[in-house]
Amino acid sequence: MRRWNGWGDDSVELELGVEARSFLAQQLGQGTALLDVRFDAACALLPPGRLPQHPLVDASAQARLLHAFGQSLPDWLRLRYGRINAAPDGVAYPEGAEQVRALLAYAKGCGADVIPYGGGTSVAGHVGVADAARPVLTIDMRRMRALVSLDHEARLASFEAGVAGPDLEAQLRAHGYTLGHFPQSFEYSTLGGWVVTRSSGQQSLRYGRIEGLFAGGRVETPAGTLDIPTFPASAAGVDLREMVLGSEGRLGIVTHATVRVSRLPQHEAFHAVFFPSWERALEAVRELAQARLPLSMLRLSNPVETTTMLALAGHARLVRLLEGWLQLRGCADGKCMLMVGVSGAKSQAGPALRAALRLARAHGGVHVGRALGERWRRNRFRSVYLRNAAWAQGYAIDTVETALDWPRVTQAMEGIERAAAGALQSWGERVHAYTHLSHLYPQGASVYSTFVFRLAGDFETDLARWRQLKDRVSEAIVAAGGTISHQHGVGVDHARWLGIEKGELGLGVMAALFRHFDPEGRMNPGKLVAR
Amino acid sequence: MRRWNGWGDDSVELELGVEARSFLAQQLGQGTALLDVRFDAACALLPPGRLPQHPLVDASAQARLLHAFGQSLPDWLRLRYGRINAAPDGVAYPEGAEQVRALLAYAKGCGADVIPYGGGTSVAGHVGVADAARPVLTIDMRRMRALVSLDHEARLASFEAGVAGPDLEAQLRAHGYTLGHFPQSFEYSTLGGWVVTRSSGQQSLRYGRIEGLFAGGRVETPAGTLDIPTFPASAAGVDLREMVLGSEGRLGIVTHATVRVSRLPQHEAFHAVFFPSWERALEAVRELAQARLPLSMLRLSNPVETTTMLALAGHARLVRLLEGWLQLRGCADGKCMLMVGVSGAKSQAGPALRAALRLARAHGGVHVGRALGERWRRNRFRSVYLRNAAWAQGYAIDTVETALDWPRVTQAMEGIERAAAGALQSWGERVHAYTHLSHLYPQGASVYSTFVFRLAGDFETDLARWRQLKDRVSEAIVAAGGTISHQHGVGVDHARWLGIEKGELGLGVMAALFRHFDPEGRMNPGKLVAR
Repeated sequence: MRRWNGWGDDSVELELGVEARSFLAQQLGQGTALLDVRFDAACALLPPGRLPQHPLVDASAQARLLHAFGQSLPDWLRLRYGRINAAPDGVAYPEGAEQVRALLAYAKGCGADVIPYGGGTSVAGHVGVADAARPVLTIDMRRMRALVSLDHEARLASFEAGVAGPDLEAQLRAHGYTLGHFPQSFEYSTLGGWVVTRSSGQQSLRYGRIEGLFAGGRVETPAGTLDIPTFPASAAGVDLREMVLGSEGRLGIVTHATVRVSRLPQHEAFHAVFFPSWERALEAVRELAQARLPLSMLRLSNPVETTTMLALAGHARLVRLLEGWLQLRGCADGKCMLMVGVSGAKSQAGPALRAALRLARAHGGVHVGRALGERWRRNRFRSVYLRNAAWAQGYAIDTVETALDWPRVTQAMEGIERAAAGALQSWGERVHAYTHLSHLYPQGASVYSTFVFRLAGDFETDLARWRQLKDRVSEAIVAAGGTISHQHGVGVDHARWLGIEKGELGLGVMAALFRHFDPEGRMNPGKLVAR
Repeated sequence: MRRWNGWGDDSVELELGVEARSFLAQQLGQGTALLDVRFDAACALLPPGRLPQHPLVDASAQARLLHAFGQSLPDWLRLRYGRINAAPDGVAYPEGAEQVRALLAYAKGCGADVIPYGGGTSVAGHVGVADAARPVLTIDMRRMRALVSLDHEARLASFEAGVAGPDLEAQLRAHGYTLGHFPQSFEYSTLGGWVVTRSSGQQSLRYGRIEGLFAGGRVETPAGTLDIPTFPASAAGVDLREMVLGSEGRLGIVTHATVRVSRLPQHEAFHAVFFPSWERALEAVRELAQARLPLSMLRLSNPVETTTMLALAGHARLVRLLEGWLQLRGCADGKCMLMVGVSGAKSQAGPALRAALRLARAHGGVHVGRALGERWRRNRFRSVYLRNAAWAQGYAIDTVETALDWPRVTQAMEGIERAAAGALQSWGERVHAYTHLSHLYPQGASVYSTFVFRLAGDFETDLARWRQLKDRVSEAIVAAGGTISHQHGVGVDHARWLGIEKGELGLGVMAALFRHFDPEGRMNPGKLVAR
């Protein structure tokens, strides 16, 4: 069963090994296991729901609590400590577009706000109640998960938009296709959620971001139904898909989405390459990204992340052997690990990999084969379970991410890590920060930083620590000229920083756009931009 | 010097050869050369300008007439017959963003509308005066043509947006780069024009459409300056670039655009392949487009276009030899010509071409080498001069284009050609219609049809014939499920059909968007969507 106050299925229980625990203790000091509040006790904290009865609306405390939060660190703190500040007044699970329309009409009728809910995996506060002044109806799309049509010629698949990653891929795989969209949240996040948050998958180098995969669809808005037909391309004015992409529930609910699918790759492999230094690795990945090689993934860890991943791997003896071998080849302290993925026809993947390794070698890269890459592939959706394991030892894990043009990448990474390192000084606490470039483009890269710090065991302190950390690293991102999000979206947590990149006019046009579809401002208020 | 009432530079004078003329006479009947009105006489037809004096504004009849029309067929008819129904009241040539802002303030102060003008190459009525109720100021961006900055690491070039194609490429070439954006109008069309009309170039298969090349920039709007920073990608809400792309001058004037450039290709070649039939060719190009081969162009002519191009080529003996040779290899009546372009590193281009030819062969494709491809390359921006040559013989040439998912492509092509063939029946006139697929995508293709018909020698009749033809083929496009434009934009001529793909809500949100930037509705009124 899915965890109500942590990540993932409760049958998957990762534990930090003794080496990992001693690594963290050394970095941050010993953590202290905390006692979480129980589900029943948390349910009992909810005030009574304020919505009138409706056959589609579940007003039970259980349903309301399960939809009250996403996966951001403040969301976790509220659930773990039982500090439930707000929850929807009811939850509905529509089974078709007509029911979505009926629910929007019901919400209007009873003066309620509406929060669209996909997989509830947001790490930026997209699904919480930002303003409880009016009653809140959460619309959970999980029952709308069907593959509606599949066009083999155009390679277009139409789905009900509540379909989650594994379900979508399984339905496509039965016909020999894949969408190829694998965000870290893949297990639970939904097609509709990907679209409205501009999601990006681990293999976007091959398959593209969701912006490129989303070909059209249907959105139920308070002002009516928006149908977006599919064209391979169009010069007919403004692209309506772009009104929906990144709209974060502010203009309606995506009920159907048509996506561009690919044939399942004949061949897929992930290889690891080590570089002697960050500078040489960066030069190499920039050239790789600009060489237009048909790779499917490039993911570069900085020295601290490389060390951390090897330390947490739990195979101390093997890691020592590997490090000895790498040292002989020039990769010692300061080494960086690059993961290279190839997917597709063997006739393309083979030459592409060889060209990539040749280019890497010219920058001092040392190819260590597929073992680490296979390990990464096996764990690609498991590593997020480390958040549970770390919490059990008294540590919090949080992440931020941005994207920047190449000349700004290193400066941003250093600025973010420096900001994090000093953020909790006033509590006498350290932050262990490390970074990878998760998505590489000819123009630049996304910068994805992870932070580990100790929990105080007290809600107010931990929330204050998180906020302090979040503010410092967000300031570092915008100071470096980065976007406030490359893949997580804005929600509540990033909204304060959005104006810096959009400007007053830009924020204003977003608000005008949403108002057109949602004149009464009922849709996910308080997220992305002010009402 | 640039022609004032036709295409291109007047030092370039194409003539229809005797074979071409007899081909057209056979298809359509003999044409009659017409007498065009002279420039001075047309200037004398203009009413006095209504704008107050301003040091930046040229109110001469010459300047006003030269900015009164684009390159659509009705534009040509008005210029050739001297039926000037409307013209701007003045023309300004700003030399910087401050002057653009000053001109917008001046227009507001004297209650004038503003038409942004790039290269004046629109074939859909973007630059004409749609509504002369208020005085009209045309802002011609030609003096803003500088390369402002070039970032070698991020491969970003910032230009003033009035820069025309050849100038832009020359400035980049000096540094070893290319934008790779080559629309048919390349000689005159501008970067800013490409952005606001969602232009697509002949080698978009490699370089992408302008949507993918445009990384950010600056727009002067009546509500203020919109600055769009460059990021490799972002999930931060709505993408402001997408508000500007396809806005057709309705929200302001793009003064600066930053574009993603590529290293000049090491190698480039265009090869011709013939297929025995449309069906086999279509199957082949769909597979080619879906195979993700790193080609730079695929352009497939249908049988009538193939025959027409060979007939107009003017080398009857060589063509007969080629046709005899092709016949031996299975390509006789009904054969279709495919142009395949490869650009880039030799190590990538060679294998890509071989893979493409292998795939073509499996569908009956016969490779005839580079001669026809080289001929196409040499004439890539010259073929549009045929419009002048045909006019001189008493024939009009017009085109329409759309894009559709693969299952609709053939049906659309047939529908458009059938509609065209019968459109002028009530005048007892025939239309010679032929088609190529100009841009191929995994999802579908653009369908580009050309029409040749006789001029009556009388403005009202010719305008009525054009309108009848345009209406019939536009109906055929939307009936087949195509977008009303894949690359030419909407302007005035396609606006009636836009609602079918955007819907009421979609049209409404476009209007709301423009209103936000241009509350008084001064910017290019009457284009794209109603005020």
